[in-house]
Amino acid sequence: MSENKVLTDLEIAQKAAILPIGEIAERAGINADAVEPYGRYKAKIDPARLRLPTDKTAGKVVLVSAMSPTPAGEGKSTTTVGLADSLARAGHKVMIALREPSLGPILGMKGGATGGGYSQVLPMDEINLHFTGDFHAITSANNALMALVDNHIFQGNELNIDPRRMTFKRVLDMNDRSLREVIIGLGGPAQGVPRQDSFDITAASEIMAVFCLATDVDDLRDRVGRITVGYSHDRRPVTVADLGVQGALTMLLKDALKPNLVQSIAGTPAIVHGGPFANIAHGCNSLIATRTAQQLADIVVTEAGFGADLGAEKYMDIKARIADVAPSAVVVVATVRALKMHGGVPKDQLKQPNVEALAAGVGNLKRHVHNVEKFGITPVVAINKFATDTPEELEWLLAWCAREGVQAAVADVWGRGGGGDGGDELAAKVAAAVAAPSDFRHLYPLNLSVEDKIRTIVQEIYGADGVEFSVPALKRLADIEKNGWGGMPVCMAKTQYSFTDDASQLGAPKGFTIHVRDLIPKTGAGFIVALTGAVMTMPGLPKEPAAMRMDVDAHGNPVGLF
Amino acid sequence: MSENKVLTDLEIAQKAAILPIGEIAERAGINADAVEPYGRYKAKIDPARLRLPTDKTAGKVVLVSAMSPTPAGEGKSTTTVGLADSLARAGHKVMIALREPSLGPILGMKGGATGGGYSQVLPMDEINLHFTGDFHAITSANNALMALVDNHIFQGNELNIDPRRMTFKRVLDMNDRSLREVIIGLGGPAQGVPRQDSFDITAASEIMAVFCLATDVDDLRDRVGRITVGYSHDRRPVTVADLGVQGALTMLLKDALKPNLVQSIAGTPAIVHGGPFANIAHGCNSLIATRTAQQLADIVVTEAGFGADLGAEKYMDIKARIADVAPSAVVVVATVRALKMHGGVPKDQLKQPNVEALAAGVGNLKRHVHNVEKFGITPVVAINKFATDTPEELEWLLAWCAREGVQAAVADVWGRGGGGDGGDELAAKVAAAVAAPSDFRHLYPLNLSVEDKIRTIVQEIYGADGVEFSVPALKRLADIEKNGWGGMPVCMAKTQYSFTDDASQLGAPKGFTIHVRDLIPKTGAGFIVALTGAVMTMPGLPKEPAAMRMDVDAHGNPVGLF
Repeated sequence: MSENKVLTDLEIAQKAAILPIGEIAERAGINADAVEPYGRYKAKIDPARLRLPTDKTAGKVVLVSAMSPTPAGEGKSTTTVGLADSLARAGHKVMIALREPSLGPILGMKGGATGGGYSQVLPMDEINLHFTGDFHAITSANNALMALVDNHIFQGNELNIDPRRMTFKRVLDMNDRSLREVIIGLGGPAQGVPRQDSFDITAASEIMAVFCLATDVDDLRDRVGRITVGYSHDRRPVTVADLGVQGALTMLLKDALKPNLVQSIAGTPAIVHGGPFANIAHGCNSLIATRTAQQLADIVVTEAGFGADLGAEKYMDIKARIADVAPSAVVVVATVRALKMHGGVPKDQLKQPNVEALAAGVGNLKRHVHNVEKFGITPVVAINKFATDTPEELEWLLAWCAREGVQAAVADVWGRGGGGDGGDELAAKVAAAVAAPSDFRHLYPLNLSVEDKIRTIVQEIYGADGVEFSVPALKRLADIEKNGWGGMPVCMAKTQYSFTDDASQLGAPKGFTIHVRDLIPKTGAGFIVALTGAVMTMPGLPKEPAAMRMDVDAHGNPVGLF
Repeated sequence: MSENKVLTDLEIAQKAAILPIGEIAERAGINADAVEPYGRYKAKIDPARLRLPTDKTAGKVVLVSAMSPTPAGEGKSTTTVGLADSLARAGHKVMIALREPSLGPILGMKGGATGGGYSQVLPMDEINLHFTGDFHAITSANNALMALVDNHIFQGNELNIDPRRMTFKRVLDMNDRSLREVIIGLGGPAQGVPRQDSFDITAASEIMAVFCLATDVDDLRDRVGRITVGYSHDRRPVTVADLGVQGALTMLLKDALKPNLVQSIAGTPAIVHGGPFANIAHGCNSLIATRTAQQLADIVVTEAGFGADLGAEKYMDIKARIADVAPSAVVVVATVRALKMHGGVPKDQLKQPNVEALAAGVGNLKRHVHNVEKFGITPVVAINKFATDTPEELEWLLAWCAREGVQAAVADVWGRGGGGDGGDELAAKVAAAVAAPSDFRHLYPLNLSVEDKIRTIVQEIYGADGVEFSVPALKRLADIEKNGWGGMPVCMAKTQYSFTDDASQLGAPKGFTIHVRDLIPKTGAGFIVALTGAVMTMPGLPKEPAAMRMDVDAHGNPVGLF
């Protein structure tokens, strides 16, 4: 990084050489008639047309997770892309499998989900904006369902749906706090039936979860049909199949369900598909994408959202129960900056060397590392290097990892790119971990009660003393058992910033309780969402939204997008 | 049509031979680097990369309009496609320019906007579903704006916006009557500022209007910046430019703004782009699409929504004021069935021959035909043939046209296709009309007051005695003049089924008054919307929505889509 001016991620992406998507498909071993181009640099892969060598074994999965994220940035997507590029550079047949970014946070304040520096997937601007329209299809299917439900109630309500007991909500892919609590159906008898309602962000939609967990179109239709939209006046669950519209919703989703092919700056084939958030949803890319990548490559580098307490736990206990996508290796991304923040340093003082703060904050990393071991996998720690990190800090952290008995490597994939040598050491350690035998296991068996599943997660993974259920949550627990849904895994909804349900408790807190305020059975996705603390399923915008800096230049290119 | 089983439009479309979109682009004279494929059979055309012969004069525009539509179906899109195919068959260099269908009505009950029978644009299923995502981009931009506005109010409201005087609304591309009147921002101080609100369908969004009237990206940004979102507590209009987010919204729209290229069953190049409804919006495809087609072809066949009282009037008085897209010929589509319905025959008895009812209903056609003459153009009547029409009925109608002094032809483009000989006679008459000199003029000059512009339209076009403004509408009239907006044209929002503002008054009613209940200044689009009667800007679903018949078959193809 010797430039006078540090380029933004967008500038780096726009200057990068990019190959026609047909060449990337060929490099990935995808037959041309299974490729549906979307512009010059994006394509959908039609799994039904994919012709594969019959003797290929499924690729091994490397799951990239992280310590608890901070506003300082931990660079998990960057490391995912850079690691894959470095593995490719070492001669492995690799594919990247990422989630699709959500538009709402992009207009607010968050960086994109396409990596950074010289470890990005391209075309980053298109991926971060509308991409191939998958989020829009999911939003449409979700809102079509709710229009059909409210229309059913309006037109005579044959199913006897109780408008006060709806559990399914409308969504927008937008950070729009004004829609968190609304009343709809006002205006008199011609305009509907008034009821209290709420909008979620699209990433939290059960349609998104179903989309990401379906094994094919038929499984998608079945799962959509099993979604519970609410309850009847006599407390029976009402499903999409009861309304008879699972076919129409499947039709709205069928093209979106095809995985999206793009490339990294270094030219590594990447599938970017599905995009639930890991704090309020299960936080993993689509199962179809992961499996398609496994069919094509020997190593698939994927990520799960936020820290290992959220995305990775859900990957292991939800996604990896549906199909054989269990990781052969797990990477936990850490940064000196984030560890110092967990050690008590304010964001504006992170540039100052501070080994003491590092030592004070490393407990956060320690808990994540040992949590991963509970799934039978010894993780590799990737120290994502920032320009302000000092050699003393990096050495201290490497020495700490050695003392803890975990492999670790400093990766400079942001600055030098995975296509350069910035990730060679990390790639070597990860390749060794992939080759080594592993002993994957889920954290809990499905035959535990929902209450005990939650207790297991909060005690084993979060480090809590226990869990406290609100009065409504206790009532839901009883309903869940009564309806025969107790055998599903649990999807915790919790702040990503802390092991606790309070975003301000950094580091590795002890002696706390997790508060479950509500439980939502997602019978299509096949899990129970446990809402903890004050976690929101519809974010808001900040006082100075990023949107105010965005525009299009004279050449038609976006500006101000990161 | 000698088959034992009459095929549905979807079945005909799915059986039709379809060319790779690159071949259609070549046929249309589009250089390959201006083509961005979306799948195999759709593409976006980048106007900035289009290389055109410098000596080509702009193509002539044929505007296809219709008599007042009925549930019996008038086949305007079918005639547009079939006419273009027939003109191509006669050796003309032709392009079709249609609007994009809206998803909401498709899930409800309406046929698609892609034509029917053997006069369709392909791939009809993809065009009728998500297509290239333009509606989704418009929905996103619209709702991003409203999230930003409500966030501005929440974060301190520097612009002093009065939450009770918002004029801009959120939208969904959905028929969702429950969202017509809502209260948002409930839940306490952390969730926003409570206010009364409303959702429109995307086709009614001012972003859609701006999108369809913009001449290029810079004009789009300027227009978006001029949109009025509401008023301050001291009654000043608050614009998007005041909020500083016109750049971000332009960024969300920039790719959608590129026209979409598809093909008819006969292989005629077609641009399908933009999709406002003609009853609640201006009802014309995008100006950029029309002009791009004019640059490429000698004759552009386009349509304007619903009857000539709505879409055609708006084409002439709104769209044709912005750029030179004035039609050289106008086609008014009529059907024996629809005329009989206007003559008093119920829908279930339309198959019975009934010349008397035809004579009773022809007044509707007569008013439309003579309305078109008020714009300086003598129309051609296209009689869109149905299998149940008798020779006597068709002959009576042709004789009537002759008596009225208008050219007319029976077109069997549904059954035989424009690529066959079904539209040859119509094409010959339209080609003659295009070649003849015309004397296009707007209905009213812009320096009339808004009140007088509305009066002119309702008296000259609808045949009303006059107009009655509600008390709120009178107040708005005064505000409009005060804010200096009186020079804009008017976009009437009125039921499409009647010349009156009462959908049940068929035929050619006389002695009625049009009731203007509200006026909405669309300062970005550059027109004033006049809401009449009970017209709704958010439709509802019927008791048995079409969605209940839809699904995906084992080959991944949609079923039940028409």
